[in-house]
Amino acid sequence: MKRRQFITAAGAGLAATALAGCQQKPEANQAEASPTETFEWKLVTSWPKNFPGVGVGAERFAQKVTTASGGRLNVRVYAAGELVPALEVFDAVSRGAAEMGHSASYYWKGKIPAAQFFCALPFGPNAQEMNAWLHHGGGLELWEEVYAPFGVLPMACGATGVQSAGWFNREINSIEDLKGLKMRTPGLGGEVLTKLGVTVVNMPAGEIFTALQTGAIDATEWIGPYNDLALGLHKAARYCYFPGWQEPNVSFELTINREAWDRLPADLQEIVRAAARQANGDILDDYNARNMEALEQLQAQEVVVRQLPAAVLSALQAIAPEVIDTTAARDPVANKVWQQQRAWLERMFAYTALTEQHIHNLRG
Amino acid sequence: MKRRQFITAAGAGLAATALAGCQQKPEANQAEASPTETFEWKLVTSWPKNFPGVGVGAERFAQKVTTASGGRLNVRVYAAGELVPALEVFDAVSRGAAEMGHSASYYWKGKIPAAQFFCALPFGPNAQEMNAWLHHGGGLELWEEVYAPFGVLPMACGATGVQSAGWFNREINSIEDLKGLKMRTPGLGGEVLTKLGVTVVNMPAGEIFTALQTGAIDATEWIGPYNDLALGLHKAARYCYFPGWQEPNVSFELTINREAWDRLPADLQEIVRAAARQANGDILDDYNARNMEALEQLQAQEVVVRQLPAAVLSALQAIAPEVIDTTAARDPVANKVWQQQRAWLERMFAYTALTEQHIHNLRG
Repeated sequence: MKRRQFITAAGAGLAATALAGCQQKPEANQAEASPTETFEWKLVTSWPKNFPGVGVGAERFAQKVTTASGGRLNVRVYAAGELVPALEVFDAVSRGAAEMGHSASYYWKGKIPAAQFFCALPFGPNAQEMNAWLHHGGGLELWEEVYAPFGVLPMACGATGVQSAGWFNREINSIEDLKGLKMRTPGLGGEVLTKLGVTVVNMPAGEIFTALQTGAIDATEWIGPYNDLALGLHKAARYCYFPGWQEPNVSFELTINREAWDRLPADLQEIVRAAARQANGDILDDYNARNMEALEQLQAQEVVVRQLPAAVLSALQAIAPEVIDTTAARDPVANKVWQQQRAWLERMFAYTALTEQHIHNLRG
Repeated sequence: MKRRQFITAAGAGLAATALAGCQQKPEANQAEASPTETFEWKLVTSWPKNFPGVGVGAERFAQKVTTASGGRLNVRVYAAGELVPALEVFDAVSRGAAEMGHSASYYWKGKIPAAQFFCALPFGPNAQEMNAWLHHGGGLELWEEVYAPFGVLPMACGATGVQSAGWFNREINSIEDLKGLKMRTPGLGGEVLTKLGVTVVNMPAGEIFTALQTGAIDATEWIGPYNDLALGLHKAARYCYFPGWQEPNVSFELTINREAWDRLPADLQEIVRAAARQANGDILDDYNARNMEALEQLQAQEVVVRQLPAAVLSALQAIAPEVIDTTAARDPVANKVWQQQRAWLERMFAYTALTEQHIHNLRG
């Protein structure tokens, strides 16, 4: 599939409208709090304790807010399951059981179909493009609008960069080899694979290794070399494929209970914003450096690390736009987000082709 | 030139050593300041007042530090020439005439040859790779070491992403067309062009347009569509070429006078660190979104926007490694930085090829 086919019939007018209002706006509600008032906040996460990359990143974020506020805003981090289960982070923040959450917005797609467009899209934006869209392309304003009815304020807070396409217990040489596979993979990528005859299942991190090793599943997509190696997936399957067409990037989210936010004085709000944006860059930088090292370690093991065949990628790419369009069309809010995002990405992909892509290809 | 040729004979051992110590370290020196003590700091910059992208980014950074500190650390921004000239920012910070500076480290290459390796390299890292190297690949530690003798603490604070290759008053169809051109372009890219017969000159922003329009120069490299359009370069030359092989990214720097830094309490230090990293991402996101729009505007003008011919890029690419090696070899500190950076980039470029590059190329 060529670039123009990913993004169809998108009007330039939509994008221009959305771009007009992309400057950061001042906070409407700021409490007149005493500078000596202290706040004790809970940050619930979807990550196991000390989880490499994103989990450690959330812990660093909390520590930095606590330090930068001189102890006026103390943030305590809870691993998945400590206070609420991994997949109940959004609800906990929405109802005020925790003031903040760190997670990935596509986990809430059942409740908020629009949410996943702020996280990852098959053959969609890489980390740089997603960040430009969120912060200077109208994305964050749409995200705030989508979460507002739930009393939740979102901020971008970390990214994985390009993921791996997954671990398989057999070689994938054609789309025939995908048929009948039982694979753990969530999100829109899973829906694309379903159309090629893959039986898609989902399961939490703790169950993946055993399921793959015992043959309960034939394949799994997880995150990337750094986290995959930590989970031991190379000991349970022989073939690791790239690139992660299903997730050219996953962006993580910081969610904040709106009422709790409004009680913070302006200086503490600014500290939270700065620390979230700091974590947004730092988690990505960490992933890139550690994924590079982990990939080298994987390549030194008895595993096969390779690119998916072009024909397989083409088949997936031919299906992806329809899957996204169909998903978006089912929900008016999701459709509003996707129409603006699609128009903007069409323009950004053209810019990337002239710049980043050409620079990469010069390297040979 | 292929990837392997850019980076020659680099030992993996060097890189492994450097990577071992890349976790963020706590500050050794932190004053026991009263939480009510206030600081009035000057931030001198190399940018004209209200300069789009990087200049506005520095002003936002100062505002955010002031807000996040509740007015305990008030940062006042000075445009180039207001307090010190554009190219004396580093010296002003080093001698304490200003507590902070915002600039680009390759401006100090005459005084500190190693400095330019933290900024931009022909056919070098893109923004994502530079950020991963700086923050999780040992780069920032080297940078701190290089600036320590000058009493200056550096932090990454913004990036341009891929620049344009420049504006030319004639078509460039072969390397023959470069010979005899008089071109404004600084840095290592200029040294590469010199070897192909270009007469390289440098001049500040305010003089470029007139020089190009009057024919005093035949070509100029500046930043990218957003800044180029603002400077009106499309009215002075007809041909705009991509990609910016000479600067696949320029990273900007925040410099801080070390004695002033050591007087700050821990919370204000953390606020400065967070705000600098926030600006590091935000300036890049801003550039990507605005460059995309500006490129579309340029393409709608009576100018020709196109890629440099492959043969020209190949010729430049064949010369670049030698120019960098020669520059580094002249100075032991620069050579130490370049040997570590080169080894690390060789590994990162291989990872990028498997991930980002492949994702881009799938788009067609």
